[in-house]
Amino acid sequence: MISFKNDYSEGAYSSILEKIIQENTVQNTGYGEDAHCQKAIKAIQKKLNCFDCSIHFLVGGTQTNLIVISHCLKPYQAVIAAESGHINVHETGAIEATGHKVIAMPSKDGKLSVKMVEKALSTHTDEHMVQPKMVYISNPTEVGTLYSKKELEQLRDFCKQKDLLFYLDGARMASALAASFNDIALEEYQNLVDILYIGGTKCGALFGEAVVFFKKTLEEDFRFSIKQKGAMLAKGWLLGIQFETLFENNLYEKLGKHSNAMAENIQKAIAQKGYGFQFPPCSNQLFPIFPDEVFKKLEQQFEFTFWEKIDDSHTSVRIVTSWATKEEDVKQLIEAIQKA
Amino acid sequence: MISFKNDYSEGAYSSILEKIIQENTVQNTGYGEDAHCQKAIKAIQKKLNCFDCSIHFLVGGTQTNLIVISHCLKPYQAVIAAESGHINVHETGAIEATGHKVIAMPSKDGKLSVKMVEKALSTHTDEHMVQPKMVYISNPTEVGTLYSKKELEQLRDFCKQKDLLFYLDGARMASALAASFNDIALEEYQNLVDILYIGGTKCGALFGEAVVFFKKTLEEDFRFSIKQKGAMLAKGWLLGIQFETLFENNLYEKLGKHSNAMAENIQKAIAQKGYGFQFPPCSNQLFPIFPDEVFKKLEQQFEFTFWEKIDDSHTSVRIVTSWATKEEDVKQLIEAIQKA
Amino acid sequence: MISFKNDYSEGAYSSILEKIIQENTVQNTGYGEDAHCQKAIKAIQKKLNCFDCSIHFLVGGTQTNLIVISHCLKPYQAVIAAESGHINVHETGAIEATGHKVIAMPSKDGKLSVKMVEKALSTHTDEHMVQPKMVYISNPTEVGTLYSKKELEQLRDFCKQKDLLFYLDGARMASALAASFNDIALEEYQNLVDILYIGGTKCGALFGEAVVFFKKTLEEDFRFSIKQKGAMLAKGWLLGIQFETLFENNLYEKLGKHSNAMAENIQKAIAQKGYGFQFPPCSNQLFPIFPDEVFKKLEQQFEFTFWEKIDDSHTSVRIVTSWATKEEDVKQLIEAIQKA
Amino acid sequence: MISFKNDYSEGAYSSILEKIIQENTVQNTGYGEDAHCQKAIKAIQKKLNCFDCSIHFLVGGTQTNLIVISHCLKPYQAVIAAESGHINVHETGAIEATGHKVIAMPSKDGKLSVKMVEKALSTHTDEHMVQPKMVYISNPTEVGTLYSKKELEQLRDFCKQKDLLFYLDGARMASALAASFNDIALEEYQNLVDILYIGGTKCGALFGEAVVFFKKTLEEDFRFSIKQKGAMLAKGWLLGIQFETLFENNLYEKLGKHSNAMAENIQKAIAQKGYGFQFPPCSNQLFPIFPDEVFKKLEQQFEFTFWEKIDDSHTSVRIVTSWATKEEDVKQLIEAIQKA
Repeated sequence: MISFKNDYSEGAYSSILEKIIQENTVQNTGYGEDAHCQKAIKAIQKKLNCFDCSIHFLVGGTQTNLIVISHCLKPYQAVIAAESGHINVHETGAIEATGHKVIAMPSKDGKLSVKMVEKALSTHTDEHMVQPKMVYISNPTEVGTLYSKKELEQLRDFCKQKDLLFYLDGARMASALAASFNDIALEEYQNLVDILYIGGTKCGALFGEAVVFFKKTLEEDFRFSIKQKGAMLAKGWLLGIQFETLFENNLYEKLGKHSNAMAENIQKAIAQKGYGFQFPPCSNQLFPIFPDEVFKKLEQQFEFTFWEKIDDSHTSVRIVTSWATKEEDVKQLIEAIQKA
Repeated sequence: MISFKNDYSEGAYSSILEKIIQENTVQNTGYGEDAHCQKAIKAIQKKLNCFDCSIHFLVGGTQTNLIVISHCLKPYQAVIAAESGHINVHETGAIEATGHKVIAMPSKDGKLSVKMVEKALSTHTDEHMVQPKMVYISNPTEVGTLYSKKELEQLRDFCKQKDLLFYLDGARMASALAASFNDIALEEYQNLVDILYIGGTKCGALFGEAVVFFKKTLEEDFRFSIKQKGAMLAKGWLLGIQFETLFENNLYEKLGKHSNAMAENIQKAIAQKGYGFQFPPCSNQLFPIFPDEVFKKLEQQFEFTFWEKIDDSHTSVRIVTSWATKEEDVKQLIEAIQKA
Repeated sequence: MISFKNDYSEGAYSSILEKIIQENTVQNTGYGEDAHCQKAIKAIQKKLNCFDCSIHFLVGGTQTNLIVISHCLKPYQAVIAAESGHINVHETGAIEATGHKVIAMPSKDGKLSVKMVEKALSTHTDEHMVQPKMVYISNPTEVGTLYSKKELEQLRDFCKQKDLLFYLDGARMASALAASFNDIALEEYQNLVDILYIGGTKCGALFGEAVVFFKKTLEEDFRFSIKQKGAMLAKGWLLGIQFETLFENNLYEKLGKHSNAMAENIQKAIAQKGYGFQFPPCSNQLFPIFPDEVFKKLEQQFEFTFWEKIDDSHTSVRIVTSWATKEEDVKQLIEAIQKA
Repeated sequence: MISFKNDYSEGAYSSILEKIIQENTVQNTGYGEDAHCQKAIKAIQKKLNCFDCSIHFLVGGTQTNLIVISHCLKPYQAVIAAESGHINVHETGAIEATGHKVIAMPSKDGKLSVKMVEKALSTHTDEHMVQPKMVYISNPTEVGTLYSKKELEQLRDFCKQKDLLFYLDGARMASALAASFNDIALEEYQNLVDILYIGGTKCGALFGEAVVFFKKTLEEDFRFSIKQKGAMLAKGWLLGIQFETLFENNLYEKLGKHSNAMAENIQKAIAQKGYGFQFPPCSNQLFPIFPDEVFKKLEQQFEFTFWEKIDDSHTSVRIVTSWATKEEDVKQLIEAIQKA
């Protein structure tokens, strides 16, 4: 059965695998202290147009979030997130396991606003409560929505004013960058956030995430944190090779565009049939609301994720495309939607 | 420069990479719930001759140790290890970061004996001290030595008697199995330890470690611990493919044999020159004691690890071979030793 | 200025201090292994009419909650609480600091219902999310409300059905027991909850809380947890003496009655003036809604806690009475309310 | 049976209890924000001759150590201590439970030397190992020995040079100050250590320890750490009253002198009989080595602690005196020693 369940059902973009094979018998220094990691760092710095930021490579997303957050916070400090934020819901309490509370704010569209952060601060005022110290957002969010540059600027300004760290989880950054709604270039992030996580796993790599510290003081001794949390890959050059390949020659952007184009095709077909969306479609995740009989027909032919029962006769689902989504699979899905 | 620095300087054995390429565009279920992981589990169970043990795949060694240990212990319980044990020295306090003390016992050969465990128990007697609950050993040890079956039986019996869990870190298990001193078959481990970690990263895989729980009760909810510690690989089938390949058709044993054979050649050349060893050479790690002038000559041509200053004119070093060590590189090293 | 700010502004009931003085020069065994703790345990067991429960004494409330919860849960397990629950709001992330998520459910009256617990379970379904394992409630709640026996029975039944531990924080248990709305005798708690915390600090003691484990298996090695969290009082008999005194001869009940009687007098005066309450007045905490000009007049004469701005012209406050509240102080407050 | 088992078998010095009684019905602000704590802080600052240090009061010793250490260290940092240090042995892994390794150095006399600290640093050199960041010592040590001013100066200088924090646990500081070997006045500590813990529990208080931060930056947000670890006493003025009383009018010194005088009398009697000591007698803890028949006779009449079997016919024990030790009890013990 064709799956639109997520963006990590296939391996890696072909050129990444080729580079890994090519390097397979070369002896490389371990633990990320190799030439490929250095090249990858330079390639990303160039794309960010920022040459004094610090970059580290990690294997997965939950790992990245827990290491970054626990590295930056003091024991009694907390991180503010949207209630639907990955760290609040889908990381099995990984942040709390490092000792920190996630202050979760209800949000309708998966985004965090200055008002929400303000409210979190206003209810945490002294030493009988945790001390909010970091703001965590995802872009695209867990429900596929996107922040505008203005929204990020507002959050950034508020964070600066309140001395909060601002951390952006870009597990699907390739899709954000390629989105038609997007008005933030990669090189602008240095002026928007303190720490940026650029995702690889969901954007063409076999695995791997890049963490960018724009504030160098935050990054001090970060390799100790990586090692302590069991995240220092022995053959670290595997991460280097992947990000080197993704960020030289615009592969990352290209893969994001493909992913979004596939989603857009599906989205149009759904809209043409008059079906609505639970969240505005912006990136490679779609949340259409299907009449139940349509939902039942589609789930017999395709894999996707049940999201929510909307009312007695309607159901929302999550459909995800990726760098690996095949045009013919999308065509099949569209035909099925049209017929259903 | 040719490196004998460690056993993770190259990628993966060719057939593993080939299998990954072959599967690259197939859609697989995420998070280790795919068919390859199932096949790999079956292949390992067959080698262990034990079909009701539980097996999970993780990415790296420190990660494996911290998840296994924190999963099994209650907050006030501690793990006993040799002072030179990986968890005590080279994991940046990963075990302590999950809340548990490592009770480190001095050991001359990297091994733990019943007597040492007994001493650890005798000094931890009530609630003012941590409660020893697990015994951690590595086989081969961090200094390349091996346990005999009798030694493991004695430790096992003592652990049973004292209600201690017995956990064996086999990061280099392929080398242990292939060692001429070894008298323990893989299928005997089910009667010797409670939890067995079979290493992949240092034994032919790109990355990956397999954890085997012979006591099923210990394994309950282990996937929660994996996820919480950021160790649940999205594309989990990558681990499945690797262990499937390693454990079908005796590849794991074959690679261990190559690794040890390379070490044995080097060892013989060293012994012929009359140089001694800091630890008895048993597996793929050698710790020769070189006269300083020999040491200086060799380090200009080869990479290996300085270990210790033995006396005014002698130095011990660590030389490591692996599944990827080339015969011609070994020849060069031997010639250099002979000439030096 | 007379304070109605909380129930821990004074020392201890006179007979408790007298007993401490009387025992001051006697040599007692340390760490709670003395005769007074034994007597106190027996006295409480008698009141509970339950002679095989295990009882431990601790110094403070946050300490008690963090030790009980971290002792009972596995690393990936979470505790469900009302959003207003003490562990969620006013313990500076103490529970999270031991590694556990608090699943906070919105609640209008500070109470948790079966429906809320059910909802928490329904959104935590697999290993990508924490595993809910304990239900935490306070009685009286943080907003002074009380559970009925029926409500506790429903929660208990649901917890049993879902294999959840049921823990009741009775920091103000004396006030709960003395409340006119209360229909639960102390000896009935053994059939209602798994773990009961009977408060001393806010109920007549200098300091001290008693933890009762009705399930003995939960209590195993609890003294290790006490010591590890820095909560094993060297002169543990100080706790024994206090609980001995409180639970022999009905002192605990008597002090609760006084506290509630004082609150009732104030409540009547407020009601007579036609002012409402934000939460139904049940125990020794009142949350009247004053017109702002009344609020301003009262706060010049008395200390109490601003709670919330209700609307443009009204404010709710928290007024707390205790075992130590003087009748003449209550009279003064009532007169001030009548005049305001 | 008369006990010389420890220095926390009795309550508090009479004037402390009297002050508590006197204040019992007065309304005080909670959580240490009362006038007594302020007065106590001023009284201690005066004794330290240091008016810009920050002082906090806690209930017990393990609590103090775990809060200070976890507050000051980053997750991957470790504390160096003598193997016999309280934090390494007798706190049930409290430090590790907050995530930090204790690097324990073998020591014959319970003291830590620059050489030992140097060795700890030399074996912790990169991110694969924890990062040593704090030196912990006790004065008097756990075996009753004392540091000289010169020794502390050497440690201080080395700590400064290596950017290590220097923390002194003075649980028995009254005994250190009163010791004939002591050459360090309380007011000199500001120039010797970064953080000083002045013990109350073992020096005349019912309970309570004072933490002095000479470096104000270290103390930032310390009240958050106190609260999070469950150590913020609701009726914090109880701590204030006790330290106020101990540090006004030289009571602390006086009680230390009594304690040491009692020990000295016992020590002389032991020496006169020709018995040796396992550790040099300096303070209120003595570790005589008795012939086994003497040991057996004495333990029938007195309580003290078995320490170690020295040889086939000798046993060392721990005898502790305190502010509360009665002269007549000491006489009885001396007579028994003389007769035995």
